[in-house]
Amino acid sequence: MLHQKLPALLHPFGGDAPSCHQLGKAHLGGKGANCAEMAGIGLPVPPGFIIPTPLCTAFARAGNRLPDELVAALPQGLAHIEAAVGTGARFGDPDNPLLVSVRSGARVSMPGMMDTVLNLGLNDLTVEGLAQRSGDPRFAWDSYRRFVQMYGDVVLGLDHYLFEEALELLKDDRGVTLDTALSADDLRALVRTFLGIVEAETGRPFPQDPGEQLLGAVAAVFGSWQSERARVYRRLNDIPEDWGTAVTVQAMVFGNMGDDSATGVAFTRDPATGEKRIYGEYLVNAQGEDVVAGIRTPDHLTRAAREAAGAPGLSMEEAMPAVFAQLCGIFELLERHYRDCQDIEFTVQQGFLFILQTRSAKRTARAALKMAVDMVEEGLISTEEAVLRVDPQVLDQLLHPTLDPAAEREVIATGLPASPGAASGAIVLDSAEAERRAGLGEAVILVRVETSPEDIAGMHAARGILTARGGMTSHAAVVARGMGRPCVSGAGSLFIDAEARTVRAGAVTLAEGDRITIDGGTGEVMLGEVAMVEPQLSGDFATLMAWADAHGGLKVRANAETPADCRTARQFGAQGIGLARTEHMFFEGNRIGPMREMILADSTEARRSALAKLLPMQRADFGELFAVMGDLPVTIRLLDPPLHEFLPAREADFEELAQKLGLSVAAVKRRTAELHEFNPMLGHRGCRLVITYPEIAEMQVRAILEAALAAALPPSLEIMVPLVATRRELELVREIIDRTAETVFAEAGRRLSYLVGTMIELPRAALRADEIAEVAEFFSFGTNDLTQTALGLSRDDAAKFLGAYVDAGIFARDPFVTIDREGVGEFVSLATARGRAARPGLKLGICGEHGGDPDSIAFVAALGLDYVSCSPWRVPVARLAAAQAALRAGAARPA
Amino acid sequence: MLHQKLPALLHPFGGDAPSCHQLGKAHLGGKGANCAEMAGIGLPVPPGFIIPTPLCTAFARAGNRLPDELVAALPQGLAHIEAAVGTGARFGDPDNPLLVSVRSGARVSMPGMMDTVLNLGLNDLTVEGLAQRSGDPRFAWDSYRRFVQMYGDVVLGLDHYLFEEALELLKDDRGVTLDTALSADDLRALVRTFLGIVEAETGRPFPQDPGEQLLGAVAAVFGSWQSERARVYRRLNDIPEDWGTAVTVQAMVFGNMGDDSATGVAFTRDPATGEKRIYGEYLVNAQGEDVVAGIRTPDHLTRAAREAAGAPGLSMEEAMPAVFAQLCGIFELLERHYRDCQDIEFTVQQGFLFILQTRSAKRTARAALKMAVDMVEEGLISTEEAVLRVDPQVLDQLLHPTLDPAAEREVIATGLPASPGAASGAIVLDSAEAERRAGLGEAVILVRVETSPEDIAGMHAARGILTARGGMTSHAAVVARGMGRPCVSGAGSLFIDAEARTVRAGAVTLAEGDRITIDGGTGEVMLGEVAMVEPQLSGDFATLMAWADAHGGLKVRANAETPADCRTARQFGAQGIGLARTEHMFFEGNRIGPMREMILADSTEARRSALAKLLPMQRADFGELFAVMGDLPVTIRLLDPPLHEFLPAREADFEELAQKLGLSVAAVKRRTAELHEFNPMLGHRGCRLVITYPEIAEMQVRAILEAALAAALPPSLEIMVPLVATRRELELVREIIDRTAETVFAEAGRRLSYLVGTMIELPRAALRADEIAEVAEFFSFGTNDLTQTALGLSRDDAAKFLGAYVDAGIFARDPFVTIDREGVGEFVSLATARGRAARPGLKLGICGEHGGDPDSIAFVAALGLDYVSCSPWRVPVARLAAAQAALRAGAARPA
Repeated sequence: MLHQKLPALLHPFGGDAPSCHQLGKAHLGGKGANCAEMAGIGLPVPPGFIIPTPLCTAFARAGNRLPDELVAALPQGLAHIEAAVGTGARFGDPDNPLLVSVRSGARVSMPGMMDTVLNLGLNDLTVEGLAQRSGDPRFAWDSYRRFVQMYGDVVLGLDHYLFEEALELLKDDRGVTLDTALSADDLRALVRTFLGIVEAETGRPFPQDPGEQLLGAVAAVFGSWQSERARVYRRLNDIPEDWGTAVTVQAMVFGNMGDDSATGVAFTRDPATGEKRIYGEYLVNAQGEDVVAGIRTPDHLTRAAREAAGAPGLSMEEAMPAVFAQLCGIFELLERHYRDCQDIEFTVQQGFLFILQTRSAKRTARAALKMAVDMVEEGLISTEEAVLRVDPQVLDQLLHPTLDPAAEREVIATGLPASPGAASGAIVLDSAEAERRAGLGEAVILVRVETSPEDIAGMHAARGILTARGGMTSHAAVVARGMGRPCVSGAGSLFIDAEARTVRAGAVTLAEGDRITIDGGTGEVMLGEVAMVEPQLSGDFATLMAWADAHGGLKVRANAETPADCRTARQFGAQGIGLARTEHMFFEGNRIGPMREMILADSTEARRSALAKLLPMQRADFGELFAVMGDLPVTIRLLDPPLHEFLPAREADFEELAQKLGLSVAAVKRRTAELHEFNPMLGHRGCRLVITYPEIAEMQVRAILEAALAAALPPSLEIMVPLVATRRELELVREIIDRTAETVFAEAGRRLSYLVGTMIELPRAALRADEIAEVAEFFSFGTNDLTQTALGLSRDDAAKFLGAYVDAGIFARDPFVTIDREGVGEFVSLATARGRAARPGLKLGICGEHGGDPDSIAFVAALGLDYVSCSPWRVPVARLAAAQAALRAGAARPA
Repeated sequence: MLHQKLPALLHPFGGDAPSCHQLGKAHLGGKGANCAEMAGIGLPVPPGFIIPTPLCTAFARAGNRLPDELVAALPQGLAHIEAAVGTGARFGDPDNPLLVSVRSGARVSMPGMMDTVLNLGLNDLTVEGLAQRSGDPRFAWDSYRRFVQMYGDVVLGLDHYLFEEALELLKDDRGVTLDTALSADDLRALVRTFLGIVEAETGRPFPQDPGEQLLGAVAAVFGSWQSERARVYRRLNDIPEDWGTAVTVQAMVFGNMGDDSATGVAFTRDPATGEKRIYGEYLVNAQGEDVVAGIRTPDHLTRAAREAAGAPGLSMEEAMPAVFAQLCGIFELLERHYRDCQDIEFTVQQGFLFILQTRSAKRTARAALKMAVDMVEEGLISTEEAVLRVDPQVLDQLLHPTLDPAAEREVIATGLPASPGAASGAIVLDSAEAERRAGLGEAVILVRVETSPEDIAGMHAARGILTARGGMTSHAAVVARGMGRPCVSGAGSLFIDAEARTVRAGAVTLAEGDRITIDGGTGEVMLGEVAMVEPQLSGDFATLMAWADAHGGLKVRANAETPADCRTARQFGAQGIGLARTEHMFFEGNRIGPMREMILADSTEARRSALAKLLPMQRADFGELFAVMGDLPVTIRLLDPPLHEFLPAREADFEELAQKLGLSVAAVKRRTAELHEFNPMLGHRGCRLVITYPEIAEMQVRAILEAALAAALPPSLEIMVPLVATRRELELVREIIDRTAETVFAEAGRRLSYLVGTMIELPRAALRADEIAEVAEFFSFGTNDLTQTALGLSRDDAAKFLGAYVDAGIFARDPFVTIDREGVGEFVSLATARGRAARPGLKLGICGEHGGDPDSIAFVAALGLDYVSCSPWRVPVARLAAAQAALRAGAARPA
């Protein structure tokens, strides 16, 4: 309908065509630009032409009709290919037919799009010409039947099952099981059947005219841009509708035209180790899909690799020395050109080498690190590029033991990959048993329906944690990540029988003490002990992290409170503690006793007397913490969880507690029941505890300050008040802190400076950040709770439907893992702006789980926060992500 | 320090002083302006002068020193009083002393301020003069000892206990129990003791110089402006520091100078009934405090009242006909002047009448209504003023039975006044028993630890509800208010023994079936049946509500779904249903069965089959609802609560359910356990249910539309989606609604129009209201849940500390009762602005508990919302509040 002026219609590449790749991926699509670029630097790419993206939009505007100008221009494009191939083959020529492939190519790789049609140009006549020219009728008829099947499926929209069924019937009839056992005549008959299927299903004969075939394939590619799957993908990834897709039409080449033909795949470096040596395999007289199909075993590319593997046959280096040498030269060229390790597909057709595709090679974490560091040393890339080139997420793999990829494994259940690393050990069903067995030196895996703060000691004692319930941010997951313990959470098919002391997983029933292995990177639970690979923090790791830190950006702190975790944090380069959770200290050793006494006290006096027992313990804890952290900043959060979390849940514990406190079991149970909450997340916790029981905060502040005064180096102290919703709350708690401090200083005859600040973890606090900043010297965004309250989403309960939510495109990713930028993110940005307006020097950090997530780090870096704080094991990930954010911001800034 | 130019220093009133009351309360303070105004209209007010508010600020600025100019001006003020009194009495004159009172008076009445010092001017010499002049030495010495005590307490800051102890010792010594039994000599000795106490405690003798006494009293009033209590009160009520307080110095008059003297209190109309007749009492030869002390029984003012009461003695009308006639004239004058019923204090000193104070009379709800309507009929006020004059909150009293104020009552426990009205009945401990006994015609009170949706039927059957746990917005409270049932919640001292079927309250143990009375207006629980007064919706009520509605403003809808509640809502003038909670329908009668079957279904098919059983029931429900509501708007919310709320909690119920469904008890329990949530408020509910189980919404939408198509009048239908956080959720649910609607319309061959909208009850939704409004045709602010999430505060758990929070000044009022304007209010205003920017015609309402709270109604009216929706019983309250908001907005707008 709309008759628009179209830009230069087709863009040829290969042969004597001038390079067009500078038109860019937006115009040519990713695949087209890639081919044009390789052709431009003189590589032997099969010639072709690109139908650029604007024609996709024109197609849609014209009501899914190919523009007339395009139809008119296609013969020119084909003429270019014919000329460039130079074999005299012509599109549709019955004697010497030119075959082409037709591929889609949007600006970015996109699932849901039509991919490829191969062998286009075959019909009842040209197939005979191909048979004669190749001297291989079976190859020609197999190509034709594949073409009909592929075209029928992706262009004509027929169910591929129809073709597969016909193929199976034929094989049954011939009494064979493999496709390869079918003869040329069999395949000729199959083509007849396939053509019949097409006619029966579409009501029209299969298009015999190669020109019509081409128009159909191009229209199908353009049409697939509007498919439901493609639309959903675009919406989720913010890809505009009007980008459109390009189409690349390219001459077919064949690696199966005799012993001077071959096909192969190569990496310019070893993608597993990162070592600089050619890695790959090839097959003589074969097509690309034969390598994948695994019918024949491919040979090695290099002689060294063949000898190392002790493989029979010849390597390509030995069998085709000239072509191999040409290939090696091309590898060098491609690495220099793209400045990265390449993954290359090539075909040798009767002694002529063709490069079909090159792309950045996927690689393991270890390889990524080694390649980045090596390439800096080779002068290929700068340190900045090296820092940007390693995905922070994969560093995690380097810091934990992983399963030996070669080891056998029997998976008995699958849950969520809640904390990375793998671990083997004996099943234990409660914390006490975990501690007992671990005390005897046994490796154990703690298996629970779900964990609670009572399980902390058992989780510490265990090598890994497995739960039947709970999501990626359940208690088990969060604590495990904080401790660096592998964890699989929410393995819903497990049935834990606490009385029989067994765990049932499908048909398998395991007893306490039986050995299992969990993989916190995949969520798999395996029977027995699976072999592991220990992490090797090689010199490359340290080199890269030093480069990362040199690029500044956000500081990285750790969420830690035990001396062990604090030491881990420093070892991983943390620049302070962003969140020391004082409540974790109350679960250790003999502290739970006085803590429970304090909670069950029925008067302020009784509570004070119990607190007096806790004081020296907390003071000693803080002393150890300060000794590890020196003068680095340490943010200590006052008691946060609801008190009932510290009370027992089991009958035996009630009895023990009652005896210890000299109360009746009924009294202990009644008080426990009184403390029950319907929604503990929104209950009597955080600063609400301080306001109702100021004596708890007084004890904690005293312990902190007495320890700080006694420390060798005066710590850089930040006292943090949790769950503040109003300015007045912080004002009241601050009064208690300052008053207690003055008392302690007067007793000691010495002062020290400290900051008082608050978590911003409630939507109201984010809104009123200006008022609150008048009383707070720092904010730490508690994005876990802020996500829970802003979205009204309990992280412990959301696992049941969060999967469906991600599937339905409501959340692109789990909002507890990656910050919900539009919602929670706006709260953070609002509070940042309002807080800094009220107090220009306000120190800002983030201490939720998001503090270790690269995408969330990039977001808060852009807001100008001062630091992120994450679990000690995530510190390297955060350092790298912070450096990348700083580098990208620098690049985005005009010079 | 700062020497500022002060305004005219003192403002005299009474005598020949020109009226100064036009200087206003801001300058003169409330009490001073009132005295000046009365003097200005010629009433016999004891003369005095006012030290205006700016001097309070000057006092503070000068470091709590009285400005020299003020000290210099005070004699002029005293000279005015001496001249105006005209008896020759002079301040400090030993023979004929003038005594004065000194009173504070800020712009608004304010607790925490020093109140009054009486009898100032007495000392060791003037007391003798007063004794001689009055001829009553006992009176003189008693006045002096009261003055020393009052001055010592409020001016010198001594503990009043010191004086009381000395008085008690003296009485012990004299062997008497009443102060009145002490002789003049006793009191003279007591004054000595008191003066000794002052000297011992302050290190200085009691000031004998009346001038010094006056300076001390004035400084004490000014100083009290800065007291802690006054500061807290100002902060909570947004009263600026610099308003300051004024001081009124006024001549003392005495009603105890013989039988031609008297003191009394009068109301110009009956404050209990509102009838236009003088109401009050007086005492001959007495002081004001004697009336309060109750030592003598006061007499009636009018003969009619005395005769009606059959009281002995003479009424004032009979005893002092001339002064009474003068008083009646003054009552008329004051009512005309202030255009409201007045509460007046007067004193007759030796035949001369003095008016000491007049103010708007406090009155019962019934009286407020009658007075407002009568005054319009009398032409005293306009209908607008009448509407503004009745406090909407008190209407509640008129709509429920209340306890007979005269009845005896034995209070055994106290909880929160959760739903107004009083009820008596037999204790029942569960819903089944409630239904059983109610079915037999017995009045019952449902007593539970807490209620859950399972108790709905029992709550309906009961006359009142009493719970041991839960706050003002607990399930019990919310549902009871919605049903109009009286409720006392959170009576923590109750111990309910479910096995013994008893309720213990302190020393009293009651069995099921024993009778109690609850007062939902006070929170009291009483033994036995206490006599009640039934509500009388007189013509005045209807008259006032008609005037209210005529002033437009917000529309008022009701939260209701049962035909009975909808009828109540219409009867109370609701203009539609703002929230029909479909889940309430599932608890009725035999519906819980298929509902549980649906929840426990393990496949979509099984769920659909259970839903098919629910469909005709829901359709019938909606049919009844539409029949009652006609073409008024009806907002129906899709299923909101988490599914586990519908499952049983008791062993017997599990067994019954298992049998009914043909499952094992273990299976039912396992599924129930799987549905358990840690924080159900933030769990799998609202639109999350629709997204995971679309078939539930399909059934509900079908039931709604089929009922609507069958209705006699096509309803004005609004389908509401709960708990939306993102635009995409609403988009998905809307697709389901629209698709189902098209199917139903196609089947019926007929269409009808309906709106689709959403609750805004999550902070994220409020922020992203612009996007959401693109998909929503209306918003209804769910301020209950919005308060819970914005503040991170569970309404079921907050009762434990909310009291402490209000006491500490963190919240001025329970944020679940009155909207937190700064936090939740900003979310509402943000969402209103963003939503209307995206969709100009967006219909906006509020359906939380706040929809029935006058203060919250005023807030949302100012934001321009279209309607509020509240429980049927609150509809009149909301109508009146809405009219007041509209009238005030009109008044604030420039003409």
